[in-house]
Amino acid sequence: MAGKKKILVLNGPNLNLLGKRQPEIYGNLTLEQINQRAHALAKELAVEIEIRQSNHEGELVTWIQDAPKQFGAIVINPAAYTHTSIAMRDAITAVGIPTIEIHLSNIHRREPFRHRSHIAEVAVGQIAGFGASSYLLGIRAAAELIEE
Amino acid sequence: MAGKKKILVLNGPNLNLLGKRQPEIYGNLTLEQINQRAHALAKELAVEIEIRQSNHEGELVTWIQDAPKQFGAIVINPAAYTHTSIAMRDAITAVGIPTIEIHLSNIHRREPFRHRSHIAEVAVGQIAGFGASSYLLGIRAAAELIEE
Amino acid sequence: MAGKKKILVLNGPNLNLLGKRQPEIYGNLTLEQINQRAHALAKELAVEIEIRQSNHEGELVTWIQDAPKQFGAIVINPAAYTHTSIAMRDAITAVGIPTIEIHLSNIHRREPFRHRSHIAEVAVGQIAGFGASSYLLGIRAAAELIEE
Amino acid sequence: MAGKKKILVLNGPNLNLLGKRQPEIYGNLTLEQINQRAHALAKELAVEIEIRQSNHEGELVTWIQDAPKQFGAIVINPAAYTHTSIAMRDAITAVGIPTIEIHLSNIHRREPFRHRSHIAEVAVGQIAGFGASSYLLGIRAAAELIEE
Amino acid sequence: MAGKKKILVLNGPNLNLLGKRQPEIYGNLTLEQINQRAHALAKELAVEIEIRQSNHEGELVTWIQDAPKQFGAIVINPAAYTHTSIAMRDAITAVGIPTIEIHLSNIHRREPFRHRSHIAEVAVGQIAGFGASSYLLGIRAAAELIEE
Amino acid sequence: MAGKKKILVLNGPNLNLLGKRQPEIYGNLTLEQINQRAHALAKELAVEIEIRQSNHEGELVTWIQDAPKQFGAIVINPAAYTHTSIAMRDAITAVGIPTIEIHLSNIHRREPFRHRSHIAEVAVGQIAGFGASSYLLGIRAAAELIEE
Amino acid sequence: MAGKKKILVLNGPNLNLLGKRQPEIYGNLTLEQINQRAHALAKELAVEIEIRQSNHEGELVTWIQDAPKQFGAIVINPAAYTHTSIAMRDAITAVGIPTIEIHLSNIHRREPFRHRSHIAEVAVGQIAGFGASSYLLGIRAAAELIEE
Amino acid sequence: MAGKKKILVLNGPNLNLLGKRQPEIYGNLTLEQINQRAHALAKELAVEIEIRQSNHEGELVTWIQDAPKQFGAIVINPAAYTHTSIAMRDAITAVGIPTIEIHLSNIHRREPFRHRSHIAEVAVGQIAGFGASSYLLGIRAAAELIEE
Amino acid sequence: MAGKKKILVLNGPNLNLLGKRQPEIYGNLTLEQINQRAHALAKELAVEIEIRQSNHEGELVTWIQDAPKQFGAIVINPAAYTHTSIAMRDAITAVGIPTIEIHLSNIHRREPFRHRSHIAEVAVGQIAGFGASSYLLGIRAAAELIEE
Amino acid sequence: MAGKKKILVLNGPNLNLLGKRQPEIYGNLTLEQINQRAHALAKELAVEIEIRQSNHEGELVTWIQDAPKQFGAIVINPAAYTHTSIAMRDAITAVGIPTIEIHLSNIHRREPFRHRSHIAEVAVGQIAGFGASSYLLGIRAAAELIEE
Amino acid sequence: MAGKKKILVLNGPNLNLLGKRQPEIYGNLTLEQINQRAHALAKELAVEIEIRQSNHEGELVTWIQDAPKQFGAIVINPAAYTHTSIAMRDAITAVGIPTIEIHLSNIHRREPFRHRSHIAEVAVGQIAGFGASSYLLGIRAAAELIEE
Amino acid sequence: MAGKKKILVLNGPNLNLLGKRQPEIYGNLTLEQINQRAHALAKELAVEIEIRQSNHEGELVTWIQDAPKQFGAIVINPAAYTHTSIAMRDAITAVGIPTIEIHLSNIHRREPFRHRSHIAEVAVGQIAGFGASSYLLGIRAAAELIEE
Repeated sequence: MAGKKKILVLNGPNLNLLGKRQPEIYGNLTLEQINQRAHALAKELAVEIEIRQSNHEGELVTWIQDAPKQFGAIVINPAAYTHTSIAMRDAITAVGIPTIEIHLSNIHRREPFRHRSHIAEVAVGQIAGFGASSYLLGIRAAAELIEE
Repeated sequence: MAGKKKILVLNGPNLNLLGKRQPEIYGNLTLEQINQRAHALAKELAVEIEIRQSNHEGELVTWIQDAPKQFGAIVINPAAYTHTSIAMRDAITAVGIPTIEIHLSNIHRREPFRHRSHIAEVAVGQIAGFGASSYLLGIRAAAELIEE
Repeated sequence: MAGKKKILVLNGPNLNLLGKRQPEIYGNLTLEQINQRAHALAKELAVEIEIRQSNHEGELVTWIQDAPKQFGAIVINPAAYTHTSIAMRDAITAVGIPTIEIHLSNIHRREPFRHRSHIAEVAVGQIAGFGASSYLLGIRAAAELIEE
Repeated sequence: MAGKKKILVLNGPNLNLLGKRQPEIYGNLTLEQINQRAHALAKELAVEIEIRQSNHEGELVTWIQDAPKQFGAIVINPAAYTHTSIAMRDAITAVGIPTIEIHLSNIHRREPFRHRSHIAEVAVGQIAGFGASSYLLGIRAAAELIEE
Repeated sequence: MAGKKKILVLNGPNLNLLGKRQPEIYGNLTLEQINQRAHALAKELAVEIEIRQSNHEGELVTWIQDAPKQFGAIVINPAAYTHTSIAMRDAITAVGIPTIEIHLSNIHRREPFRHRSHIAEVAVGQIAGFGASSYLLGIRAAAELIEE
Repeated sequence: MAGKKKILVLNGPNLNLLGKRQPEIYGNLTLEQINQRAHALAKELAVEIEIRQSNHEGELVTWIQDAPKQFGAIVINPAAYTHTSIAMRDAITAVGIPTIEIHLSNIHRREPFRHRSHIAEVAVGQIAGFGASSYLLGIRAAAELIEE
Repeated sequence: MAGKKKILVLNGPNLNLLGKRQPEIYGNLTLEQINQRAHALAKELAVEIEIRQSNHEGELVTWIQDAPKQFGAIVINPAAYTHTSIAMRDAITAVGIPTIEIHLSNIHRREPFRHRSHIAEVAVGQIAGFGASSYLLGIRAAAELIEE
Repeated sequence: MAGKKKILVLNGPNLNLLGKRQPEIYGNLTLEQINQRAHALAKELAVEIEIRQSNHEGELVTWIQDAPKQFGAIVINPAAYTHTSIAMRDAITAVGIPTIEIHLSNIHRREPFRHRSHIAEVAVGQIAGFGASSYLLGIRAAAELIEE
Repeated sequence: MAGKKKILVLNGPNLNLLGKRQPEIYGNLTLEQINQRAHALAKELAVEIEIRQSNHEGELVTWIQDAPKQFGAIVINPAAYTHTSIAMRDAITAVGIPTIEIHLSNIHRREPFRHRSHIAEVAVGQIAGFGASSYLLGIRAAAELIEE
Repeated sequence: MAGKKKILVLNGPNLNLLGKRQPEIYGNLTLEQINQRAHALAKELAVEIEIRQSNHEGELVTWIQDAPKQFGAIVINPAAYTHTSIAMRDAITAVGIPTIEIHLSNIHRREPFRHRSHIAEVAVGQIAGFGASSYLLGIRAAAELIEE
Repeated sequence: MAGKKKILVLNGPNLNLLGKRQPEIYGNLTLEQINQRAHALAKELAVEIEIRQSNHEGELVTWIQDAPKQFGAIVINPAAYTHTSIAMRDAITAVGIPTIEIHLSNIHRREPFRHRSHIAEVAVGQIAGFGASSYLLGIRAAAELIEE
Repeated sequence: MAGKKKILVLNGPNLNLLGKRQPEIYGNLTLEQINQRAHALAKELAVEIEIRQSNHEGELVTWIQDAPKQFGAIVINPAAYTHTSIAMRDAITAVGIPTIEIHLSNIHRREPFRHRSHIAEVAVGQIAGFGASSYLLGIRAAAELIEE
């Protein structure tokens, strides 16, 4: 994977609604606006990023499987699939790509079923609770991993 | 949402087999026959309805996300996804559309893993155990919600 | 039981306070007002109904035991006894009368101890979360059962 | 309690239906018929017995409280209250009367919620699974206790 | 409720035996003797009290429901129903009367099934372990609530 | 099995010590003395009995397997194997011989690990807590089963 | 289903990576190589087979639903969906096709969340731990089922 | 301990903030103001009291160990250590000093992890939910213990 | 172990009854008949096998301990000891012989206490649910292991 | 708190060993070296920071209590106290200072008892798994909070 | 038991393999070599010892039952039966002989099912984790018990 | 650590009371008397020892951290912190010093919350139940570790 400086930013189900619904929880920024901020940061950090979103577990699994061809790291907000998708977990393990799990909200303060993450158990680390900044902190962490 | 008198009737996985398999559990009516009865009732109640079915969690999530554009309420039989889909739950919460959960069988008499519903925790209410009539009772309840 | 078109509507503890206390949760209708609406619906459906309420588990058990003499079905809001009364459950099983469990509120969204229903495990089905309409939907379902 | 040779046979909720409902589970004998057999056995064993039944937990509690005035032992089939009544348990402990718990069916083969007995934890012993004979075995055991 | 200075002291099942049975656990005072002490204290605090006891859950529920007509606060020793009665809990919530839960013994040192209180979860507070003094401390606390 | 009037009385591990150790728990009678009482009762009931004891789970399994050749019913005190032997449970199920489980002490009042019985789940019934009389009550119940 | 000698071999998420990733766990054979071996064995056993793979739960559900049209049995490696897909379980139950669950690794030695299989609860049997041979053993077992 | 009329009032972590933070939960009184009220009550009851606070579990343990030299009883608000300190529990048991546990808030209504008290299991009793009055009620109860 | 082509087939408790009892569950073949089929298969696969059965856990442990002297692999149907024998598990681990666990029935569809296998956690793999064919599939898998 | 641009970086027990022990888990940087990097970043972000470490829960509680006098946010690595200190949790809640929880290692991949964080339940968010970079990401997040 | 200076050293299943298998876990000493060291120590301590081993739970039970005839104390390494044998536990309780439980490995660091010991709950104490020295420490402790 | 023959004996909270309180549980020896015996044994074994006690978790953590400078092994009686201190566990792991956990009483016979030891999970071994002799056995074991 050495040399791949591109970071794949994956978004799980319902994150296409970002900035349009429940701003009091998830903030006012849309996925495009986060995208812009992320690209600005990427430029500053001299890495490339690509942001995708899907409501389909199977599609997310496929994207993870294909990631090593183009990307050096994944920053993923698995949303609801955090707690239910062993398939995404297995995909991350199978391709062995360094993965950083992020969440807009602090999942540890929410309903008990949101406390367990199948993804965190195979990820490098987890960043949760900083709103749109979780994406930027995740990209920073990923950029550092790629550097190493 | 005021003014939207159309009700979206969503069916989860395997409900396309309705009336064709296991009639002793799920009855003899096919989804089309339920559709007909539902349309007859809708006419009586002066509301419109639209029935869809999918085996894909992601597609159901997308339909829920898009519902507010056209519909004033959802009547959903989430079938197997009742117990596993946090993604559908989050979609319902995100769009804030009043949702009524229905089941053909009385899930509370079945295997323990069918007792917990992720959907009921965000739905207006739950109707379970009345076979095809669960659909009609759900549409009545939805029609009443739209009236308010 | 064939031919018995009368429906017994049973109410568990504290439902005598309906419409007088906590209207934000249970609505503004008193038990008498629900009674009136229920009778109107019964007339429309050409069935008879009788509504009773008791704070005593033993009295409710006795009413269930005696129900088959006069009634073809029971619509019951067991209130607090939903979660604690095996005696009422056993009475329903013993007399074998078709029973529909209703709740004003959506018990699946409330405290965990309200999620388990001893009654639902022996009832035909459960309707929860539609306020006073839960009674009307329950009577409709019961009327349909009697028809069969 | 010395000298009191009378045995109180208490029956919990729904046992007034004995022999009339679900004979495949509970047998064909009515409470009166069991009463007769019990009296015949009592005569043989030279003890007196008295059989009562109530659907009310509070009434059963009161009967237990008053038992020591007349009775030397209790044989109780607590039925559904076996699993839910701490009040009956506390009454038995408070009056300290030797109590034998009986069940028509083998509760250990039935639903998990029927496995735990609040009464057995304060009773002399438990006899379960022998149908009407459970009463007779219980009376024998009680007669022996009174003798001592 | 302002102005109502009368306090209702409710006693659950088996407390009619107080002072007559198990004095090593519950002390030597009968309910009447506690009553006398309570009246003496009430006089000192310039409040009125009324003490009742029932073995019937349903009767206790009804007394709670009617309490606001005459009383400004409830001091309740729910005894065995502490751990099993959701009906009493719902009655307290429904009428919204300030309620203080008391216990003669320290329930937190006893069997695990006595640790959970359905009443404490809706009461102002809990006082447990001080024998007959629990009643007096409870009345003091109630008197103070009425003052406010 | 019709016609076989002989009853096999099986004793699990440590019951060879009966009457010699811990008389305050298990009574003063030795296995031989119980044997004598049992034979006296058998004579009275016109049945034959045979009493065996083993500390080996495998030997008890084999005895159960061979029982139908000679015996019409088993009365078993499985002692410690009550809670751990699925092999004995499977043997009882396999040969289908009516089996009555007995215990000297009331296992429901003892340590939690003694509450669960693998044997009770396949036995006709359970008798526990009557000391040596548990054997006699068990033989009576078995004699009655053989009669049927 | 009589006469249908074709076997459908279904593969769940990430199995498209077989032989390419984590060979130490899953072996060196690709899905195509297993396919070849499977076809060789099928020829030997005089049955036909067809192998498919999908990362999408919904697609696997649909394939199971359609299986009876062409196939007499299913051999399925549900991979991650083993533990999370009630939808696949319901599909198998609905179409009633004999299904054999296989796993490359011994799931009973892995993380606790991999011990529970929703599929095994409705399958004929389970074969786990034999690497690519699990497929061949599963096809043998399926061939035998078809013969019957 | 006879003759020691002094009561030690111990306060666990964060109670030094009393009256300064979260008055809506803990009231407006500072520890000094409670101290004044407590001294006034002590005077009325003819006992002496001393109030201490520490954020260190070890310091609280030492104070409990030393208490019998000067004090006849402890009134303790263990705050967060209620739920985590076995060391404080062991200290109370070791020195055998009568201890009364108090809480400002009703811990039984709060988060589940606040329901279990290591201290209550060795204390005389528990008083919870009466704000600053919990201290006064606790001192009254302690004064009574000292009298005996 | 290289070169040892003999396979030890071990049978746990009650399997000596095979084909004689409960044929609806375990099939009509006796252990000898399975033995014959197994020998036929062994011949075909050019391996030797030896079948033993015991009701004694200790004897099975000893057989496992001695296995490496003569055998290259074990195929074991531990029956009831599957769920209770840590001793057999430890023996398999200690001698390090490749072991294949088989079951006639699909244990994952049976009572919950049959879901956990102490043996599977140290076995190469598990084959369950194929009746007598489970033995044959197990021998095939073992033969393959020996080849390697 | 507006205007306070200083960030308090707190370290729990054993973090004084950082860089000296178990570098394979916690990295090679000592607390001083992290301090230097943190100061460099702070300068870049135009905030001030102060780093402290203690092995004493009580001291950490006191530092949290005093933080609002000087600091606008806390970045805390509570180490072992993450999982056991309700006192630190209550201190954070009491003073209401925005707090960011960080961990060197990904606690979600470690022993189960490290998965539950008392601190995360009251923190703004959690950052775990990035080694010394967790500190830098936490300081960035804190700086952003102070800006708002 | 006074005067009996002989110590019985019992070994459970698989310990006959000691020193021959898995030396990295259990060390290189065989049971005979441990025997020699134990005899040397016994001589030094002026006590006699006898070492036995069995794979049969029933045989171990019988040895424990017979121990008081010859021995003043038991040192037992119950191996796998530590976690499953209530029969051995009951035997120790029945004969009342002081028993010391030893383990070669530290069972508290191993799989969760090895953490619970039925034997420790009735033993004087437990020594685990010191390899062959556990035997020597256990014999020292037993010798001291015999002295008293 | 080679060459360091000094052993640090650490005592957790309340052990300063040894010999002064609850002698029926903890024996009559004070910490000084144990110290004397320990020094006598140390002399015999040609090792040095140092005994310390603290009620403060933080102080115990610090002593463990500093131990490798002077000591070759730790013998620790963590008392109440056995069950609650992850900080002490982490300190032992961090400095990697061989640690032997001892207890005066047999913690496995006491309350369930005393069964789990955070320390045992990282210690060489555990010795529990031998009163003051636990210290001497622990020192012997430690001396042996130092020798190696």
